[in-house]
Order: sequence, then C-alpha cells, then structure tokens
Amino acid sequence: MRLKHNCGLIGVHGSGNASRLAYMGLYALQHRGQESTGIVTSDGDCFHAFKAPGLVSETYEGEILTDLDGTLAIGHNRYSTTGSQRSSNIQPLVVDLRGKPLAIAHNGNLVNACELRNAMEMEGSIFQSTTDSELFVHLMARSKKKSLRSMIGAATGAVRGSYCLLLLSVDSVTALRDPNGFHPLCLGRNGDVIFVASESCGLDIVGASYEREIAPGEIVTVCGGEVTASRFAEADRLSMCVFELIYFSRPDSVVFGVSVDAVRKAFGRRLAREHPADADIVISVPDSSNAATLGYSQESGIPLEFGMIRNHYVGRTFIYPTSELRDYRVRIKYNPVKELLAGKRVVVVDDSIVRGTTSRKLMRMLRAVGAKEIHVRISSPPIRFPCFYGIDTPTREELIAAKSKVPEIARYLEVDTLGYLSVEGLLESTGLTPGDFCVACFTGDYPVGFTSEPKKFALERFGDFLV
Amino acid sequence: MRLKHNCGLIGVHGSGNASRLAYMGLYALQHRGQESTGIVTSDGDCFHAFKAPGLVSETYEGEILTDLDGTLAIGHNRYSTTGSQRSSNIQPLVVDLRGKPLAIAHNGNLVNACELRNAMEMEGSIFQSTTDSELFVHLMARSKKKSLRSMIGAATGAVRGSYCLLLLSVDSVTALRDPNGFHPLCLGRNGDVIFVASESCGLDIVGASYEREIAPGEIVTVCGGEVTASRFAEADRLSMCVFELIYFSRPDSVVFGVSVDAVRKAFGRRLAREHPADADIVISVPDSSNAATLGYSQESGIPLEFGMIRNHYVGRTFIYPTSELRDYRVRIKYNPVKELLAGKRVVVVDDSIVRGTTSRKLMRMLRAVGAKEIHVRISSPPIRFPCFYGIDTPTREELIAAKSKVPEIARYLEVDTLGYLSVEGLLESTGLTPGDFCVACFTGDYPVGFTSEPKKFALERFGDFLV
Amino acid sequence: MRLKHNCGLIGVHGSGNASRLAYMGLYALQHRGQESTGIVTSDGDCFHAFKAPGLVSETYEGEILTDLDGTLAIGHNRYSTTGSQRSSNIQPLVVDLRGKPLAIAHNGNLVNACELRNAMEMEGSIFQSTTDSELFVHLMARSKKKSLRSMIGAATGAVRGSYCLLLLSVDSVTALRDPNGFHPLCLGRNGDVIFVASESCGLDIVGASYEREIAPGEIVTVCGGEVTASRFAEADRLSMCVFELIYFSRPDSVVFGVSVDAVRKAFGRRLAREHPADADIVISVPDSSNAATLGYSQESGIPLEFGMIRNHYVGRTFIYPTSELRDYRVRIKYNPVKELLAGKRVVVVDDSIVRGTTSRKLMRMLRAVGAKEIHVRISSPPIRFPCFYGIDTPTREELIAAKSKVPEIARYLEVDTLGYLSVEGLLESTGLTPGDFCVACFTGDYPVGFTSEPKKFALERFGDFLV
Amino acid sequence: MRLKHNCGLIGVHGSGNASRLAYMGLYALQHRGQESTGIVTSDGDCFHAFKAPGLVSETYEGEILTDLDGTLAIGHNRYSTTGSQRSSNIQPLVVDLRGKPLAIAHNGNLVNACELRNAMEMEGSIFQSTTDSELFVHLMARSKKKSLRSMIGAATGAVRGSYCLLLLSVDSVTALRDPNGFHPLCLGRNGDVIFVASESCGLDIVGASYEREIAPGEIVTVCGGEVTASRFAEADRLSMCVFELIYFSRPDSVVFGVSVDAVRKAFGRRLAREHPADADIVISVPDSSNAATLGYSQESGIPLEFGMIRNHYVGRTFIYPTSELRDYRVRIKYNPVKELLAGKRVVVVDDSIVRGTTSRKLMRMLRAVGAKEIHVRISSPPIRFPCFYGIDTPTREELIAAKSKVPEIARYLEVDTLGYLSVEGLLESTGLTPGDFCVACFTGDYPVGFTSEPKKFALERFGDFLV
Repeated sequence: MRLKHNCGLIGVHGSGNASRLAYMGLYALQHRGQESTGIVTSDGDCFHAFKAPGLVSETYEGEILTDLDGTLAIGHNRYSTTGSQRSSNIQPLVVDLRGKPLAIAHNGNLVNACELRNAMEMEGSIFQSTTDSELFVHLMARSKKKSLRSMIGAATGAVRGSYCLLLLSVDSVTALRDPNGFHPLCLGRNGDVIFVASESCGLDIVGASYEREIAPGEIVTVCGGEVTASRFAEADRLSMCVFELIYFSRPDSVVFGVSVDAVRKAFGRRLAREHPADADIVISVPDSSNAATLGYSQESGIPLEFGMIRNHYVGRTFIYPTSELRDYRVRIKYNPVKELLAGKRVVVVDDSIVRGTTSRKLMRMLRAVGAKEIHVRISSPPIRFPCFYGIDTPTREELIAAKSKVPEIARYLEVDTLGYLSVEGLLESTGLTPGDFCVACFTGDYPVGFTSEPKKFALERFGDFLV
Repeated sequence: MRLKHNCGLIGVHGSGNASRLAYMGLYALQHRGQESTGIVTSDGDCFHAFKAPGLVSETYEGEILTDLDGTLAIGHNRYSTTGSQRSSNIQPLVVDLRGKPLAIAHNGNLVNACELRNAMEMEGSIFQSTTDSELFVHLMARSKKKSLRSMIGAATGAVRGSYCLLLLSVDSVTALRDPNGFHPLCLGRNGDVIFVASESCGLDIVGASYEREIAPGEIVTVCGGEVTASRFAEADRLSMCVFELIYFSRPDSVVFGVSVDAVRKAFGRRLAREHPADADIVISVPDSSNAATLGYSQESGIPLEFGMIRNHYVGRTFIYPTSELRDYRVRIKYNPVKELLAGKRVVVVDDSIVRGTTSRKLMRMLRAVGAKEIHVRISSPPIRFPCFYGIDTPTREELIAAKSKVPEIARYLEVDTLGYLSVEGLLESTGLTPGDFCVACFTGDYPVGFTSEPKKFALERFGDFLV
Repeated sequence: MRLKHNCGLIGVHGSGNASRLAYMGLYALQHRGQESTGIVTSDGDCFHAFKAPGLVSETYEGEILTDLDGTLAIGHNRYSTTGSQRSSNIQPLVVDLRGKPLAIAHNGNLVNACELRNAMEMEGSIFQSTTDSELFVHLMARSKKKSLRSMIGAATGAVRGSYCLLLLSVDSVTALRDPNGFHPLCLGRNGDVIFVASESCGLDIVGASYEREIAPGEIVTVCGGEVTASRFAEADRLSMCVFELIYFSRPDSVVFGVSVDAVRKAFGRRLAREHPADADIVISVPDSSNAATLGYSQESGIPLEFGMIRNHYVGRTFIYPTSELRDYRVRIKYNPVKELLAGKRVVVVDDSIVRGTTSRKLMRMLRAVGAKEIHVRISSPPIRFPCFYGIDTPTREELIAAKSKVPEIARYLEVDTLGYLSVEGLLESTGLTPGDFCVACFTGDYPVGFTSEPKKFALERFGDFLV
Repeated sequence: MRLKHNCGLIGVHGSGNASRLAYMGLYALQHRGQESTGIVTSDGDCFHAFKAPGLVSETYEGEILTDLDGTLAIGHNRYSTTGSQRSSNIQPLVVDLRGKPLAIAHNGNLVNACELRNAMEMEGSIFQSTTDSELFVHLMARSKKKSLRSMIGAATGAVRGSYCLLLLSVDSVTALRDPNGFHPLCLGRNGDVIFVASESCGLDIVGASYEREIAPGEIVTVCGGEVTASRFAEADRLSMCVFELIYFSRPDSVVFGVSVDAVRKAFGRRLAREHPADADIVISVPDSSNAATLGYSQESGIPLEFGMIRNHYVGRTFIYPTSELRDYRVRIKYNPVKELLAGKRVVVVDDSIVRGTTSRKLMRMLRAVGAKEIHVRISSPPIRFPCFYGIDTPTREELIAAKSKVPEIARYLEVDTLGYLSVEGLLESTGLTPGDFCVACFTGDYPVGFTSEPKKFALERFGDFLV
C-alpha cells in the first residue's frame, strides 16, 4: 500500500444531466487521484469547463454543475505522474483544434514525451502545460489529417507508453486504450446514456450496467447515440498493470474483466498456502488489504479480527506537531485494538511494502500494545523496480526490496516472520493469462522500452509557478 | 447507524505542546462531532483560543497551533444537540468570571435548561450563546462562592441532565461527570502530562496510557501536576448511555471500562443466538457494524464477506443532482460487490435502524445486484423513543419502530427476515450490571425526569444569525 | 491626516428594504470605521443578523441582504476604540434581554467602563465582548425596570463618556445621544421611511431628507411609524467634538447642524489671515484638506493647484518590501506632480499633524521634486493631549506637539515656515458657540472627568483570540 | 470618463528586490487595469510566476513576493480588451520557447488577430489563451529564427495594431512599442536598476528618475546592465492615443513626453475660451476631471468649488438593492454638496461622455439639491466611433454622440448648456504636433486599417470556462 495512484476517467454521452453524472462518476473514482479534478461538457455548440485542485466533494460547489450545460461530458481526477500541480496541468485539457474545440483526459504515462516535445518545439509549437498528455493534441494538430479519427491515428502512431484517453468533441465522446492495455477502461450503459469509466464502480454509482472492457488498441467513438468501435493498433504483447488488481482499483470494481474482490481473496488464499503461520488471529491493514486478509483467514482457518482501526477523518494536511511528536504520525491514521492483540500471535496482511517506513511504525505500534508474535504477509511480490507507466513509485534507492532481501526486511520491520506472495502465485491467482500482465516493478522486465528513464518533472523546466 | 453524535472532549495538563496534543486528541475524537471545533490554552497568565466551524483536519491551519501558547489546554468537537450552528455556540466557551478567565467544554444535554435560563434572565443575566452549556458559567458566576470548586458545586446542584465537563482556569484543568454517568470520560497519562478524554482513543493517539474512567458524580482537578479527585454528588441511579457501546464510540476505545470492540462482537454473537439465519454469507454495513458482524459470523459459522464497500471520500456537501438522480444517493456512500452477492442468501448486520429510509435503499441495492434472500439482523433493540440526554434522535413520529412492529418494518425494508437484539440480550452482553444503563430510547423509561420535553432549539428564540 | 475614526451608525424604520437601505447608509459612512461592519434587522417577530470584519463593499455578498428580512434595521461600521478586533466585539451586539431580543450599536467611548464592569462581574454578570458598549445592555438587564425606556434611563444614569446609541427591539428603533453631544447623530426621512445616521451623507445616499440633529441628552424612539422624542438628561455643558468638523466627517455632510465643507473653507480662510505666506501656489494633502486649502487660496489669492495625487487603490495590506524600500511607503499613497512644484514657493495645507512622521516624509518628497520653499499651514491647533471620548489618538509621548514647540516642529519637518490655526480662530470659524465644543486634545481641558486614564484594551484581560 | 482602460506594464532589471519593485510599480499603475495582475521573475536560471484575478493590493499576499525570486521581473495589470476573464488569459503569459522560457506582457490590441490565429492553427499550432497577445510568441516560435531579436522581428512584421510589449528571458528584459506609438512606454533608472513602465508614475513610486519615452518602432533590450536600443520599424505615421492625455493616465505622470496635469489644465483653459459660461461656480466630476476644471476656473475667473464628493470606498461589487433603489446607484459613488450648489449657476466640467446615462443621473442629482443652472463642459470632443486599438469603448449604437447632436445630448442630460472641446482645440492644447495623434474615436479616421471590425471576444469561440 501507499503507492500513489494514477488518474480516474469518466465519459458520459446522451444525458441532459451529463455534468452531474460525470460528477457522480468522479466521486466513485476519487481513489484514483486526489490532486485535482475537472469536467468539460459540450452542449452541441459550445464547451463548458470547470477545473480545480482538490477533492470532488470539495470543489464542485453551488451552481457549478448547473452551469456545465450539455449532454456530453468527460471528467478527470488527477494524481500527477508527470507535470507539477500547476493549474494549467489540471485535466481535462481544452484546446482549440483548427477552430474546433477538443477536450482530452488521460490516464497513464508516455515514455517518449521528452523526445516528442523537443522535436515539436523546434518546429514552432508552444506548450501550455508540463504534462505528457498535451502531446496528443499537438500531434493531432500537426498531423494535417482531416478527421478526428485519423488525427488520433497520427498521434497514437507516435507515442509510446501507457494511455487510456477520453476525447470530447462538440458532438462525440471518444475513448481509447493503448495497445498494451496497461490500465483499465470500460463501457457501460443506462438506457440510452452511454458511459466510459476507468473502473466499473464509476458505472455502478450512476446505475449503469457494465458492458465490457475497451480492448487494448481499441478506439470507441460515441456519437449521436451510436457506438463505433475499431482497432487502431494490434497488441503484440499485453501488459496489464497487476497493481490495479493488488491495490489501486476499488474491491467492488470489475477491472480487466475480473472482480477485484475475488482476485484479492485469491491472493490471500495463495499467500496462506505459500506462507502459512502458526498464529491466533489474522488482521488487516485496513481498508486496502481487507479482501486479501479474509482470503488468508479462510484458507488458513486462523480467525479474522478487526485489529486495527482506521480514522477516516484524516485530511490531507495533518500538522505534524513537533519532531518529538512526529513518531505518533502513524497513529493519526491507524489505532490498534489493544484488547484484541495483547498476548496474541498475530498475522498482519498488507498488500505491499514500498519504503518500509510506515510498515515499521505500524508493527512497532502492534508490539507496543502487547502482540506476542507478528507475522507479516504481503499479498504481492517485493517491489524492486520503479514504474514508468503511470504509477508514482519512488526511485530504486528508496524501495526497500531493491536493496534488501526478505530476512533483512523482516529485521528492519522488527517482526517474527515475513512472507511475500510469489510472482507465479500472484499471476496464477488472477485467473487470467499470466503473460498478459506487466510485472516490471517486481522483475525489471519493462514491456515498453525507453531510451532514458522518464522522470516525473522532465517537462518542468523553468521554475515554480504559483496559481 | 445514522444517529447523530454528541461531542468529543480533550484536556491536557503539563506540556509545552498542549495545543498540539489537544489537536491530536480532537483528531481521534472527530467521530463524536463534526460541526465545529475549538481549543483554548492557558499559558499561566493568559488564555489563547481558536474556534471554527468544520473538521479538525480542515480548520487548524498554518500557525494556529503555534499561536495557541501554553501548557494547559481543553478542546472540543461539537455536534449540536442544543443551540444552532451560530458561531457564538462553538465551544469551548470562554468567559470572564469576576475578572478571571474560564473556559468550559460540555458533552451532554441539560433537561432543565429553559427554566434555569428564564429565571436568570429575570435577574438581569445576559446570555451570549443559545447552548445549555452556558448555564454552568452563569450559575457559577451568580453563586457568590469564592473557590472554583464551590462555584462548580453551586452549578451542579442546579442542573439536571447529562454532562461531561472540562473547565480550564489559568492554572488548572477540571473534569467532571454527571451523577448518572450518561457519557464516558477517562483519565490518561504520558509521563508528567495528564490527559482527560471522552474515549480512550483520544489517549492512544498521544501515546498516553489509559488510567481510569472518571466516576459518575466525580470531579477531578489537575493543577501543578497534582490530580485531586472528589465526589460532588452520590449517584442514586447509574444510567450510562448504551448507544455509546452500540454505535457512538470507536471500536478501538475503552469506554465505561470495557472494550467497545469486544462488547460489539458479544452483541453479534448474542444476536446470532437470538436470531439465527439459514444463509450463505454474512455482510456488514461498514464500518460501524463490522465488529457485530464478525461476532455473528463467528457464532453462526456463516462466512463473513466484505459485501458492501464504503466510499470514504464522501464529503459533507454532496450535490444531489436532480430528483431523478436522488435515488442514487445511497450509492455515493455504499456500493455492493455484485460478484459476492449474486444468487446468495445474505445476512446483513447493522447496528440500528432509525427512520428506516436509508436501510430500505441499501436493501434494494443488494436485491438489485442479485441477492436471493436478505436477512437483516440489528445489534440493538428497536428505537422507540427520542433521547433527551445528548443524542440527536429524530422525533417519535420519525422513528420507524415507534409506529411499526418488526414484521411491518421487514415488509417496509422488503427483506425476507428481520431480527433485533433484545434489551436483555444487549445488556447482558455488555458484561456490566444491566441496571446501570440508560435504555430510554428502547423502553421510554427516562432516568432523569423533566417537566416538558426538551427541544433542540428551545433557546434559539429570535431568528437566524449569519456568522 | 491620520487620526483614527470612531464608528458609523445607521437606523432604518418602516421599509421592506430595511437591510438594503442600512447597507447603503453604511456604504456612505465607511470613512467612520473600516474594521468591521454589521446589520441587524427585525421582521416583527425575529431578528436576523450579519456581522463580519472588513469593508462594507467586501463583506455583504450574495444573498446576505436578502436573508436579512424585516422592516426595521440598525447597522454599524466599527473602528475599535475599546476592545480588540475579536469577532464577538463586532457590532451591533445582539442579546436576549429577559426573553426578548435587543440589538445595540454604539459610537463613542465610556470613561467609567472598567469600574462598571468590575462591579457587575462581582454580582455575577458574564460579559461576552471586551467592548464598553456591552455595559449598556447589562445595566439595562440588571435595572429591574419594565419598559425599554426606563431600562435605558437606568443605563444612561450610570455611564459617563461619549455615546451615540441605536437600539433595535422587535418593533422599534431607538436613538440617543449623550448629554454632552460629543458626536453627531441626525434624523432623516424619505416618505414614510425614517432614518437615523451619524452624518447626513448617510441620508443622502438613500434619498432621504435631513430633518434635524438629535439633541444632546435626547432620546428618540420610532415605533409603528411614530417618532417620539424626549429628554433623558439636561446638558449642563455641551462638548461637541471639533474634530468631526476638522477631519472625521465627510465634507458633503451636515453635522452639528452646519455644512462641513463650509466650515472647513472658513478654517482655511482664517488660517490665511492668521498665517499668510508669500508663495506661488497652494496645494492640499488630498482629500481631507481640500476644502481648507480652497479657503486658504480664496482668502490669500495664491492660486490653488492639484500638486499631490492620491492613489485610491491603496488597500489595507501593502506589503512593505524591505527596510531599504520602506522609505517609499508614503509614495504608495501620494505622488507629487513634479512639473507643478519644481522651482516653486509652495503652501501646503493639511488638517492636522499627529506624530509628524508622515508629514515629514511628504515634505521631503516635495523638496525632492524641486519645491523651492515649503510653507506648511495646518487648519487646526497643535494636538497636545490624547482623546478619551472616541477618537483613537496615540499616547501623549507620541504626539509631536505635546513635546515640541512650533519652530521645533518646523525644523523636524524641514520646512521653511509652519503655522497652525489658533483655538479661537478654529472655534469662531465654526459659526457656532465656541464654548459648545470639546477642545481637550488641544488644551487638556477634559469636559467629562475620569478617575484614571481610560485605556483602549482595559477590558481585554486574558489573551488573544483567533476568530 | 467611464471608458475602460487597457493595461499597465512594469519591467525591472538588476535588483535583488525585482519582484517587490514590480509590485510597487503595478500598485501605481492600478488605474490602467483592475481585472487581474501578474508578475514573472527570472533568477538567471528559472522563472517564478504569480498571477491572479483582482487588485494588486488584494492578491499579493503573504510570502508571494518573497517566493518570486530573481533580479529581473516583468509585471502586468490587465483590463481585457480581447479575451475573456478566464485564468489562462491573465498576463504575463509564460511559455516554453524551444526549450527556453519566455514571458510576455502586452498593452494594446491587434487588429489582425483572427486572421493570424486561423492561419497558424491550420499549420498545427495550439493556443492556450483567447488573447491576441499569445500570437506574438507563436509567431516567434514559428519563425525559425535563432536570436530573440530576430524572432521578435518576425513577429512584429506580421502583426498590425497597437502593442507595447515587455518580454522576459532568463537574462534580459526587452521592451518595444508599435511603430504608430499608440500607447506610452518609458524608461527609468534608479542607480543600476533599470525600469520600464507604461507611465512615469510607475517610476516615481520606486524612486526612479524618468529617462525618456521608448520611441514608436523602437526595441530596447536590457541585459547584464546594458541598455541596447534599435529600430525595428520606421513610423510612417504616428498615432498616439489622445485619450491617454484626456483620461487614462494619472495626472502626475509624464506620457508622450508631456505632463498630463499641464495638458489637462490647457484643455480646461481652451474649453473656457471655446465655451464660456455665465455662472457662479465651476465644479469637477472628481477625480479625473479635476485638472481640466481648474484650467477652466483659472481661464474664466469663475471660482472653483469642490461641489461633488466621491466615495473612494466603492468596491467592485455593489449589490444593487432592488429596481426601486437602483436610481440611487450614482449616489454610491458621488454625492453633491447641497450647501454649495443650492441656488447657484454651476459649470460642471467632465472629461468625456460615453453613453450619457451616468452623466444624466449626475446632473439630475445636482438639480435635486437646487442647482439653478447647469452648464456642462466636456474637455474632449464628442466620441462618435469605437476604438479598436486597446480602449474598451461600447459599440457605435451605444455612443450617445454617434447618434445625437450636441443640442439633443444637452436635452437628454436636462442641462442648460453643453459644450465640447473641439478636435483642433484639443490637439493644439497638447503642445505636440497635432497630426501625431489618433483621433479615430472622434473622427472615424482609423490610422491602422483592418479587413473587418475586430471584436472583443472573437477568439472566444467555444463557451465559458470557470477557473
């Protein structure tokens, strides 16, 4: 846990409530990005846009949704993987494409963004944001193609990396997914209203039924109530992000066509077989590890307990008092139930370990209330490599598993035993073809190559900008 | 669930970080009141105060905690049970008591507030808030007593109802609890720093150890590092609020001397014996019913599943789109996991039913994703009477169990079976003396009488006040 | 010049637009106080109130005026002469007086506030603000009188100092002015709507005609469209604040029954006779000295020029860059017209000199653009004593004329000559009886005695309070 | 009066206080644009930027100026003549020009913006704002030139219209003025620090001395302390905006090399000769007409009086109460001094009449307080044509002088006589070559042609955008 998410996308076609439905979808997809949010609508002639830093629940106030007139909408929740938090980076990006408006929302990360941008700047292009997402519209604009479809083709032919994209024109919503299928994107429907969402929980909230995933390399255009789908590229190698199943997606979602809750329980069961423990109770680091913990309990027969309580009122700006009080930091978010843990041998299931610093504090906290033995079980393999496809991992130096072996990590965490799920165990538990996933963060085998390591702020050249 | 809370109290004595420790305590006690928050500190000469509407995580910004200088502090999270949300009602209340400063924070509700206030106004007193809490300081000021202790005695002799109180003077923190012991209040310590908190989770967050409950009718003064305790009244009848155990308190807290998590699991186990079900899975309405659900699962042997996912990003101001979309309201907060529920016979455990409207929507949502049978089990008895001791229940007319019998409620909820925990089952499961609890909301037997039904806005006479 | 104002009052009776008319009146009276503003209305049953720190133009937003329902209103612009800027000090003060609402707005300063408050606190009164104004309502509440009129009588019998007061009850607006008549208060009318305002410019803006001053010691009640006036005290000595004519009031106002513009021109003409100058041009320190400057020009025959331009966009929070740039401070507000001044012998007319620091900077600025001679003429006598009746003067130590004679002040200002208007010249120029004015700030002859020097923050005992 | 301004520019080179000096300059230039403000600094490597809607005095808070690190700065106050108020339109505009940062600030209006933008969009350019100013950087980027100087040359070769421009690169500040010299721009110096400002009042505030105007068609680059000036175009016809002298500029400024105060007094004197009046007093519509009024008084011998008082606390958001109260609108800003005007024959001098609606209200207000005769004198000719070079005039239909002759206007204003300054009188009074001014708004003779009438929102194609 504690990896940063990427982004959440929602598209709506064919409702007089388009802005409100997009808002609801973004509400359900808030976990995918909390930095900023935006909605752009089309009323058939004009676009209407609102974008702001902050949470969905805090930004759309008063008459904003009413002012966002129209029957088509795309929305975006952002967690920045390229580009800073400056306001011009908030998506959807709205541009004037040869006299016609176009809005674009992007989930993913391009690995050849710097090369592309440098080349276009030499040709006289001026960029307004420091996001890789803006490259798409410049590639489209420069393509000299006439139709939106062929302009998109020109752009997808040039970019490399991960991208789920939503494009809004005056009369259409277009969705596409990169040929590797890194991140999920699905289609839904409620009567005549057609939806596109990063996860199916974005469909549930508006009462829409899940229809299908958009396929890797597929482009889907919804215009005048008609859905047109075609391939813009053949996928030679699928590489779906397995962390979507481990941690990012909501357990009530269907992503890559499978139930996240079911897959996570399967991870937990496999973990119990790979790394059994002789213990009194199993507890979860709530809430992201709940399903895996339940799977572990079911498979092992060790009873589940709610041994750690999470404070859901934690805001984004806790004022860490003084250095002396800083150690209590983890207590702001989690508090152990002393009566349950004192004198017990405890299995703690977590979904992942990144730097290890928070885990260490949590384990010390459990020990402080009297846990006799602590057996940590991680429902994913050790993270050894950074991600360049849309997940905000720290650098290799900061990843504890990149420099330490499992017994060393156990010692660092001051726990009795530590067990990680194996890569095979992980992939087999998904129920899908093991080779169709990207596991670069565990193995270093990057499915889409790059000339140099992409950097988060590579496009951020000239200093800081207050809004 | 969905009853409104009362208030959270925190007191700190003997730390140069008093404001920061109070802030952390309020963070952990946020669930007891989200309307407004305040901290008052004493630096030995002067008071420093900050009060604002909103959440702890959103209001204490920038240098506020630094500006709240001093080694003593009291803090308050408010949910209004009397008085409106006007700014002069935000606690702690700070007054000038015969040339000396006094701050007061109150959790509870007085049932003779109107009579007392009318009488004092006839004598020339001017009130600044519309809270019952302000009566204490006026009673103290009018008492002609000399010491703080005897002034408090004069006030407690006059008021009737529920009150946990914290008082801050220039050099002391005083805590007291009404003779009936309606709401909890406990003492803790971390080295030389002494704490008072509504629940023990407010102690855990600052690394303090739980020492003991403050007894009903007890007054505790902390001054110069010394703790002095005495009785200001004998309790002829204890009447602890059983809803503190059912719903209000955090499961990781100790209140009334018992573990909330343990008691809730006991409720669930007893519920399973009183109302067994022939079902495939047991699910909780998260998070307040989690412990009772686990108890039900353990006792019945029916496997627990995380069948409903709660969106923790829900803010306080969801913009309900249009009447047509209003039915999706409950989906904003809860989403069922379709793959788990489809075709299953499901036990749903909830802690309480108030009006029944939200429960009905939840159950329809479960049915919509394919639940074959729904068996609702409530870990408390039917709520038939309003509370006048600090819980914000609706009027009798709005309480579904006040007008409908259980089978009617089941029909209203459109579920297959419905079972409530019995009053005896509830009280026996606490492990404490059954007669020591207030169960007026189930039975109508009010332990502290009143001449007329207290009304929430009785002191709110003259109109509305923008801040 | 730079003395601080006191407060502005507006009362409205008999209009469905009461809040809006009060708002307009406060707009016109903004110059009398810029710290905070408030309006309270009565709809015949209930009060509605809004109070906030800041300017009238910045605080009443959106639907606020619409929400302030009712046909009666009182409004207040505050500059604090007692009490800090804490929010509970913002007026009008609204209290619950023996079960009935009362709002009060005060312009002035009581010199026996501390004694009165101490005595009442010993009797059990609790004060909510640190203003002297709150004493009135406590005195009224404690009086045991039955009618509003007799309660007010009890209060006016106890207080000493300056007070123009507006009181709002559910069905009436009452206005009174202290027996000394320190500050102005006038009655106006537009059809059936009756107004009370600190200055006649508050009547002009709402199209009301000026009827008369409220007399010193007079109380006027407007109820049901009827105006009832009576005396509550005989004035043994009038002591109208002459600074209302010199500086505070707007030149377009009638105060104390005379035109401010006309009186100020008379000051300028007398000044020209008392202190002639051999010069090329006369310029004003805009805008408060404009009328006196014109009078000086007319009498002396020296041509007027607009030699200094004032920047009206100056906000209240200029960020003074660095100490090195701090000297440019005065340039933010004033800029000389170089082409007019270079090589000229210049008479500069200002209304007063307080500390002398700003004047010195202004004169240096004139010299820097080439003024050959500078002859400063002040349209009031030297300020040698602090005011305790509502004007926020600095302490004696800070008043330049309290420690320096005129030639020394001229040297400090680095000007060629300096002349102040004499006390007799000042008083004779008003056209009113010279003995009817308070000139304590020039002579030290305080018309209302006090046991000890009142201090601005005397009631501010216990520290600072963030809102 | 009541014409809208264009923009204010300030450039600073060579001070560690660059951001603070730019801030002070913008403070003094606030009258040229109140919609938004921004400063961009360079620290030699990076840019730092802050931009916000609102006034200078209200937007630069806290540590903003400190965070704007660097020794070079350009700043901008905006009043939009093209483009809406959307946030991406706030200047200075910062772009990434082939890997190097560039900031640009523009005062003026291009008349071929639409043609240029359409052509570049067809070539694949993406625009981020809807201002004409952005065209410069796109023209520069597309030019394939290598040096900044030659890129600017390519841009100036393509644009037509009015432009004073400031450009900031990492190590230089460049200023240029269109060959027609529509708007003013001047150079100043304080020690080693070099300044560029729209008017000399922006130099005075920072203690800088005025050096000279930047000539029409001149480009000045300041780099490493060196000032390099050259011509980028020969001016075949000068067309300086005469309204800069009539109304826009501050009277304490030198613009086009002449003192604004002196020229305005000359307008007033000539006006007195062209349109004498038999009257008792002369009054000004403050403050923009003060100098012309003084000139009229001096020439005619009719005494000046301050007959109308302006409320300088008027904010930008007066809440106009109800339609019934809307007629008082003009009183919010101006109030006549009844005692001066009653029974008098009054000359009212104003700088211009645009629609006539406000003038009519003012004159009615004067009549209402008893003015016996009203003789309006306007210190400029009748405005008959809209401006396309940077002044926000209404359309022809709304200009009262476009459809009515002088006697009709007098009747509309309900005044006794009305006289406008003649075009010859105006131009001769400037003391400069009459043919060097643009008088298109009086004569319709537009010095720079256009194919179709430029429209304010021509680039605003696709709807509204909330920030």
